Parts: sequence; structure tokens; C-alpha cells
Amino acid sequence: MSQHLSVQVDDGDLVLLTDLYQLTMLQAYWKESMQERATFSLFFRKLPPTRRFMLACGQQHAAALASRLRFSSSALSQLAGTGKFDDAFLDWLAGWRFTGDIWTLPEGTPVFPNEPYMEVDAPIAEAQLLESLIMNLVQLETVLASKAVRLVMAARGRPVVDFGMRRMHGVDAAVRGVRAYRTAGLAATSNVLGGLRHDLEINGTMAHSYILAHDSEREAFRAFARHYPDTTLLVDTHDTLEGVRMVIELMAEEPDLRVSAVRLDSGDLGELAHRSRALLDEAGFEDIKIIASSGLDEFSIQELVEDGAPIDAFGVGTQMGVSADAPVIDLSYKLVEYAGIPRVKHSTGKVNLPGRKQLYRRRDAQGRYAGDIIANRDERSVDGEPMLVPLVQGGKLDASVMAMAVDARERVRSSLAEMPEALTRLAPGESDYPVELSEELKRLQQR
Amino acid sequence: MSQHLSVQVDDGDLVLLTDLYQLTMLQAYWKESMQERATFSLFFRKLPPTRRFMLACGQQHAAALASRLRFSSSALSQLAGTGKFDDAFLDWLAGWRFTGDIWTLPEGTPVFPNEPYMEVDAPIAEAQLLESLIMNLVQLETVLASKAVRLVMAARGRPVVDFGMRRMHGVDAAVRGVRAYRTAGLAATSNVLGGLRHDLEINGTMAHSYILAHDSEREAFRAFARHYPDTTLLVDTHDTLEGVRMVIELMAEEPDLRVSAVRLDSGDLGELAHRSRALLDEAGFEDIKIIASSGLDEFSIQELVEDGAPIDAFGVGTQMGVSADAPVIDLSYKLVEYAGIPRVKHSTGKVNLPGRKQLYRRRDAQGRYAGDIIANRDERSVDGEPMLVPLVQGGKLDASVMAMAVDARERVRSSLAEMPEALTRLAPGESDYPVELSEELKRLQQR
Repeated sequence: MSQHLSVQVDDGDLVLLTDLYQLTMLQAYWKESMQERATFSLFFRKLPPTRRFMLACGQQHAAALASRLRFSSSALSQLAGTGKFDDAFLDWLAGWRFTGDIWTLPEGTPVFPNEPYMEVDAPIAEAQLLESLIMNLVQLETVLASKAVRLVMAARGRPVVDFGMRRMHGVDAAVRGVRAYRTAGLAATSNVLGGLRHDLEINGTMAHSYILAHDSEREAFRAFARHYPDTTLLVDTHDTLEGVRMVIELMAEEPDLRVSAVRLDSGDLGELAHRSRALLDEAGFEDIKIIASSGLDEFSIQELVEDGAPIDAFGVGTQMGVSADAPVIDLSYKLVEYAGIPRVKHSTGKVNLPGRKQLYRRRDAQGRYAGDIIANRDERSVDGEPMLVPLVQGGKLDASVMAMAVDARERVRSSLAEMPEALTRLAPGESDYPVELSEELKRLQQR
Repeated sequence: MSQHLSVQVDDGDLVLLTDLYQLTMLQAYWKESMQERATFSLFFRKLPPTRRFMLACGQQHAAALASRLRFSSSALSQLAGTGKFDDAFLDWLAGWRFTGDIWTLPEGTPVFPNEPYMEVDAPIAEAQLLESLIMNLVQLETVLASKAVRLVMAARGRPVVDFGMRRMHGVDAAVRGVRAYRTAGLAATSNVLGGLRHDLEINGTMAHSYILAHDSEREAFRAFARHYPDTTLLVDTHDTLEGVRMVIELMAEEPDLRVSAVRLDSGDLGELAHRSRALLDEAGFEDIKIIASSGLDEFSIQELVEDGAPIDAFGVGTQMGVSADAPVIDLSYKLVEYAGIPRVKHSTGKVNLPGRKQLYRRRDAQGRYAGDIIANRDERSVDGEPMLVPLVQGGKLDASVMAMAVDARERVRSSLAEMPEALTRLAPGESDYPVELSEELKRLQQR
């Protein structure tokens, strides 16, 4: 085994989080003095079967990191150690920095197959190097936000809380996942570091182990409620309804105790919620809320909501934390132009769109999405709102554009209201949302 | 959006990668002066439908990190900022360290449902705090190693190379994933930082963009082969067999060029491999190898191998990188003993095994796995080899035990030969591998 125990990846090492061929190609470009400008386009070819749209997320974060990327002396000495690089090339890498432009969709924008959601224009050795890192960073947040928004839709306004840190894929997924969840509209997270970093309310309840470590459930409830006024008590360790009755008894015994909610974490959640609600209401505790968790996904939440289960908030973990039904999208980062000439790989059966592009979104008279048009970037008089914005220009992050990310959560909220109903259905199935190519792009593609 | 742009998680912040309730329960234990020793057991209840065993991985790494975990002053001030913790408790956290014992299976051990693969014995406020972090760390490496070993089995001795960094879930998954891949038996990775940190050979080929950026495929091949003797050329940008013919022509023109392999990345890989092999052999290049990639998983590799496709190595990415068919296992970390008394949650339909445990693996006369027995830890004369070892004792990592992790790759290799054939089949299905409870554990469970 490697004796590398720390899981810390310093900002200075981040530049090494790439595929080796990026660096060998870079050295080749450097040796060949190839430094014309290239454009790479980030997109995906198809939706997972269980998604009707993806929520573009992480691209502003990735662009911001790319604009600051450097080869630290530690990174350079690690590369030197591989024996694969010339000293003169490593010297050149020491001065490497991104000087190009990055266009992105604002985070939280619903996005469809073949739509450019990021375009990088830069000398080829700059744009090429970003490929692996950008894809890794964007894929994570996009996949998680696109799953999380489905839970938010299913809950129809009831708060959804992330309890999934323990089941996510490692440290970075858990921390940056909260950023995606915030964008998608989750109400809170149990994840302390994720919540602190990415400005989402942190909350939590108690674990079964706390109950079991006490001499009795009653002792455990009493102690926890004394420590934490307005806490949530986990009532299913032995028997859910007995647990609810015990909370009620305890509050009768100690009128100063304040409990804000009970949490159901096993069994038939709908049935137990109804019966718990009845017990609480009967005892005069109409204000004690019911939180449910236990392997929930968008379909079980939808069913509970449609059945009228009196559940006030949902805690979700495993299924959302890895986007279990669609843990990956086939993101591509393709060269579409070099030295002013549109380029494209001629793969059979795959759409490849040459040249620098812009995405336009059209709306109907009610403000609802009516369809998208993918066009050449400098094409005039295309119908609709241009969606890609120049977040990084000349290697510099535009703070005013970056600030759009602050509104990503609100953008998602309003998008959900502006999408055709077929896009917001949770069941697998095609939507007929129209994505067309502009006339000029069609002509360019045919050449 | 959060303005937290760095994705770096310092070792000093790692302690905050936890669920809030761990910290609120800790404060409760501290207020209640509950400091008896607890034992928590890490296990999973069932295999994903497409796995016949899991490869335990990451538990030594997680234990090593746990033994060094501290609340840095930065972590404490972030906690103070939440307003949820008393100053006196935060002072106590400043001195918090793990002083207990951690028993683990050696990494690379095949593991089955309900088997303890890690047990933590410590004062409850120490053992409790580790829950979320250990689960997050162990789950990632276990899920990825358990997927990767299936690709290794499918390839029957042909090298399997990780090309998946861009599709993994963020920075830590990509870097630590390579550690899991090394254990599982992959031959190499394209991931520079992952390979450097976790001691797996780094290699790579070239991207379509390099071909497209040159005036012709021939120019690109020539340039790259001059820069990198014995390189691999990617031949499918326009037409795979034309690409192979071009490599042959180029080598005829420039006898000094040396190419070690061609890479096929689209189309019918079996058919193209046969035809490419024929072209190369006919031209006298029997030593040029063929590498195939393009959405491969264990089933497509198995089919190619069984069909006798002349492919010398496989590059795999997307499916392996997120373990797409089984991205998560339902790991549990359960309190099984407190203050010397075995404890257990009485859930309907779930197996919960009280008390401190040991796992024994029995072998038949040929040295093959014959079945496992889960026993009480201090039980005598249980048949088989005891599998859990005390990696951390009194808060100190045992370097000689930790060194077992160096052999994890070899442990996996030999395990594959020692498992009953039913366990090594790739198709979904039950194996009848016996996992039993010892007589004493059965008695304890019934009490």
C-alpha cells in the first residue's frame, strides 16, 4: 500500500489531478510550438434514462479554479520524478497560467443533450490542460444537483434535508456535494464542513447509538431534550409509536422540556406518520413536527406526499448522495476549433458540433421555456435569450459575472416554474423539449 | 453561491467532515459525563445484486487517519461560529484525540454481509465521532475496489488500465480511487496525482483533439511518435483501419520511429481488433500491441476475451469510476456494546449482532475458502483463521500491522484463486458461500 495517509489535496497539487496524456500532449504542443487558439466545448450527448433535464452545476466553480491554476514547485518536482518530461518543458510549466476565456451557462440552468454548457477559448496548451480537471469538477456537482432537484420537486415545498455524507464518494464529493444541494434547493444538511463552506443550514437529530448507550430510551430522550431545547427526538429505536408516546409522557412530566420534532427512521413511514400525528395531536402537541427518513428517494417521497402523509420534512441520504440511478453523465470536452478553423471528429452516429457556439433559450408568451437553439457564437438575430456568459476573460475571473452563482438557487426555483410540465415529471420517459440547430450551425456542420 | 472556491480540505478540517449529530451527541456525552467504553461495528447487511462479494478496502487508511484526528484551532473556531456548542465543550474538544483500539480486516479481504470488517473500541465520545468519517472513507475505496476487481477477473490476466479520472465523483474519489484500483489489481492509471500518491504506474496515450489540431492524422502521428518513442497512437479519429494503415506506412517511411501500441476507441472493438491485428501482422509488426477502450465494463471485456479478440490491454473509465451498477453499499456503524454490556437495536427483519466480535475464515483441504464464522471476540476454539487484527491500540497505529496493507494487492490476487468458483462469476446471482454465527454469538443474540 501507499504510505500516503493524508487525504488532503493542496491547491498546488490540483494541477496534477489530470490524465497523463494531457501533460504529454502539452509537451508535444510546446515542442512543436503549437500555440494557436483553440476552443473546447463541454456538453453531454444523452440524458440518463431517468432524467428529463440536467441541472448545470459546478461550471462556475471549475472556471474559477481553472483561472487560478498553477504548477507549484511541489507539483513540478513530482512531475520531474516521473522521468517523462524535459527540464526545459518543466521550466515552461512553472510559468504556465490560463490566459484565455471561459464561457459558461450560469449555474442552476437546466441543460439538454448536445448543448454547450461551457466553452474554453485559449492557446491550445492552456485549453487542453483543463479538460480532465474541469470534467471531474463539473460532473460531480451536475450529477448531484440534477438528482437533488428531483427530491425537491417530489417534496412539493416540504423541506428536504441532506443526511447522506457517509455514503458519498469521499471527502470532496461530500463537501462540494452540499454546494450542489444548495443550488438544487435543499433546505439543510447534516454535513458540518459542507454546510459551513457552502452556506447551507446545518442541522441534525440524534442516532440510535445515543438511545442504546443510555439505560432506557426515556433517559436518553430526557437528557437530550434538556441539553437541546427544541430538538428532534429519534423515536424508532425500539418501537416507533411507543417512542412517540414516551415523548408525550415526558413532556407531561416536565412541562419545561421543548421538543420541536420527532423523527421516524424505519417501518411504513406513511402509516407511522399518520398514527404519530394522531397521538401528538390528541395530546395537544399539534406543533411538534414529524421528520421522516429511511432509504427515501424521489419516488417514495412523491408517494408519501400524494398519499397525504403528515410528514413535515424529509431526510435523504444514500440514493441522493451518489445519484444512485444515474451516478454519471457522459460529459465530453471536445476540440471544436483550432487556429480559427472549426474542427470536428467524424464519429458515426454521434452529433459533433463544430466551432464556437452560443445557446439561446426561447420562451412562450407566459414566460415558459419553449425550446433551445444552438448557434454559432457570433451569429446574429437568433431568436431567444443568449445563455452562455464570458465568466473568465483573458484569464481573469469576472466578479460581477461570478456573482450570478449567488443566485443559482433562485434560478433553479424559478426554472422549475418556467419549464414545460413534461420536463418536471419524475417518471422515466422522453420529453419533447425542442433543441434545434441554427441555420448557420447546420451549414457549418454540413461542410 | 458560496464564495469558498478552493476544493482543498486540510487535515485540520477533516474532523468537521461529520454529521452535526455526532458533535451534538458528543456534547451530550460530555455534559452527562458518559465516558464508558463503547464498541461500534462496521458491516453491511446485503450485497448489491450485481456483487457476489465485496473487497474490503480503505479501512486501514481510515483507521490511520482516525488515529491522527484532531480539532485544529480553525476547526474549533468554525464550530464556535455555529453557536451550537458551549465554550467549555470546545475547550474539551481541543484536547480530543482517539485513545482506543481499532480492529480491522486486512485491506483486500473479500467480505460478506453481516461480517464485522472494522470494530472500534473506545470511550463512547471517541468511537462515536469516527462514525461518519470512517463510513465515508471506507465506503469509497470498498465500492471502487469491489467493482475494479470484476474488470480484472474479466480480463483474465490482460492488463486493465484506469482512464476514468474525469468521470469520478470529485477530487478525493479520483485520488483515493487509485489506491483502491491498485489493491484490486489494475495494471496502471492515467491519473497523474492518483498514481504518484498511491504507487500505481501512470500511463496514457493521446486524445482525439491532438489529431484534430494537426493538419492531418499522419502529421499528428509522426510528431507524437518522434516525441515519445514506444508510444501508443490513437487510430480511430477518422477511420480505425485507415488509422492502422497510416501507422504502418509511417513506420515504413521512417524506420527509426518506434510505436508500441495502437488504441481503438470506438466501433466494434472485437472486429476492429481482429482486422487491425491482421494488418499489423501482415506488415511484420507482430510486436505492436492493441489497446481497446470505449465504454467498457466487465461484461464487454469478458465477451471480448471469450471471443478471442486480439486485445492486449483494456482501458476503462466511466462504468468503473463510479461503480455505476452498484455505486453504494449500505454500510452500518452500529453500537454493539457499552459499559461492558452488549447492546443492539431491535429492528424487525434486520440482523443485528451484539458484542465485540471476531471473524473466522475456514478453508478446505485445497486451501479454498470453505465458509466464515462470526464469533464473539474472546470466544475460544472457533474453527478457522481469525481475520480481524488490532491495527490501532491505545490510539497508536501499529506500523507492523499497517504494513499488511502493502500486501493488499497480493492478498487480492491470491484470494481470487482461493475463492469457490461461484463467487468469481460475474453474472448476477446468489452464491451459497456459508456465513454462520458461532454458538456463543447465537446465544448472546437470543438473550
